[in-house]
Amino acid sequence: MEPAQVNANDRSPYVAYKSIVAYDGTDFHGFQRQKQGVRTVQGVLEGALRQLGWDGASILAAGRTDAGVHARGQVISFRLRWKHSPETVCAALNSYLPRDAAVREAMCVSDDFHPRFSALKRCYSYTVFLGKSREPLHERYAWRLAHVPDLQALNSASALMLGEHDFGAFGTSPTSGGTTVRTVFISMWRQHGEMLRFEITSNAFLYRMVRRIVAATLEVALGREQESSIRRLIDDPSARWETRLAPARGLVLERVDYPSDEDELVRSNVRGAPD
Amino acid sequence: MEPAQVNANDRSPYVAYKSIVAYDGTDFHGFQRQKQGVRTVQGVLEGALRQLGWDGASILAAGRTDAGVHARGQVISFRLRWKHSPETVCAALNSYLPRDAAVREAMCVSDDFHPRFSALKRCYSYTVFLGKSREPLHERYAWRLAHVPDLQALNSASALMLGEHDFGAFGTSPTSGGTTVRTVFISMWRQHGEMLRFEITSNAFLYRMVRRIVAATLEVALGREQESSIRRLIDDPSARWETRLAPARGLVLERVDYPSDEDELVRSNVRGAPD
Repeated sequence: MEPAQVNANDRSPYVAYKSIVAYDGTDFHGFQRQKQGVRTVQGVLEGALRQLGWDGASILAAGRTDAGVHARGQVISFRLRWKHSPETVCAALNSYLPRDAAVREAMCVSDDFHPRFSALKRCYSYTVFLGKSREPLHERYAWRLAHVPDLQALNSASALMLGEHDFGAFGTSPTSGGTTVRTVFISMWRQHGEMLRFEITSNAFLYRMVRRIVAATLEVALGREQESSIRRLIDDPSARWETRLAPARGLVLERVDYPSDEDELVRSNVRGAPD
Repeated sequence: MEPAQVNANDRSPYVAYKSIVAYDGTDFHGFQRQKQGVRTVQGVLEGALRQLGWDGASILAAGRTDAGVHARGQVISFRLRWKHSPETVCAALNSYLPRDAAVREAMCVSDDFHPRFSALKRCYSYTVFLGKSREPLHERYAWRLAHVPDLQALNSASALMLGEHDFGAFGTSPTSGGTTVRTVFISMWRQHGEMLRFEITSNAFLYRMVRRIVAATLEVALGREQESSIRRLIDDPSARWETRLAPARGLVLERVDYPSDEDELVRSNVRGAPD
């Protein structure tokens, strides 16, 4: 891969890009850039972009994942003076990224695209490994439970999240003073052998909301807590949730959906051409 | 967990243990102990054992896996002056082991048990991820191929390995001047969505044999090499294999079988009591 041609006098117009990013969060101190010397996803992405002549102040992202949280479908946006195809931008960025971060796709978008404010839905997964002993090959991507939770109780408690509720007891708004009302579309656990996998889709999430829901529903399914305790937390933002937070390592930001994605889906169904 | 009681004057008899060990090989320089400062699986296992009063010169292992190779079923043996149950030995060792290594089981064995010489069969798996772009969440445990190999051609080439052959062209004997004849019982690829998984079971393996077989059969299945070239390598130890070695990260030592395992199986089938 040829290094990007950086030309300080380049005055060609900026092109806005949307990009889907994946990372193994284990060795990052979360997504958001911090002070120098702290390894963050934003830091390595901006470092790679700078190699392509990026001169922005900050990239934008759909969600600021916590330390240790992974992503298969984080979405970022940035503007670049660059005359190559999105495929070339993607390959060039990957050549500058470390092994635990990668750009899966890049595409040109309109100037007003914002990965957070334009998003319609986010989908997270959480993986639990049911094992009596520590298993190093599952250690990075799953929370190990030595006791097997009741799958029916788990799904009954998880279904309480569906619909529009004030989830204030499960987390704080990412914007100070912002609403804690969210609409959950999917909230379901499935078992695959010794792995339990939770999928949750919502219009947006509060800070640490998924990890609190995972911990809470598992407490019920392990018989340590009543389902009614969870029922009390929903719609009562002043209620306090006293159990622990599920560890970051089981959590993956799977996907962020935007209006145009659905438009594209509709269009491809009617065999029309995308924009 | 209470630390083990170490007593230098302890003259209680030694007990021989067999133990099943799992590790993520990524951050180890292989299994075998090396000079001080080089992180090896044997090094961390012996370090943990020393905390339990182990005073041996070296543990024994079924196979010395290469740098980057993983294990779910490596087998080691050691002798300990220790008055607790194997379950307690297992838990105590785990409390001293790092996150990327764990003891899955420990059991008492007869003094003449040797994890390498007593073994009847070894089973390895190799995982390939079929993906157009780099995927950080598969990066540690799979080899990524951008082109999809022909599964039928892959299995046809892999089946050539079955039976007793001189595999001298695929690797060197772990003992200097030792035979390169091995008997392969299972050699098969299966596809699970975007993952391809190879399973190979043999009485024993040569150094790097699995990684050479993986690379060779994939070359055929990608249409870059004739099946007849592989046929020529088998039984002709003087033949040279010029293609690359499949990377270590896809390889896992899954299991080592011993005579007593089968005895136990037979006994449990007839509802007899194990020793």
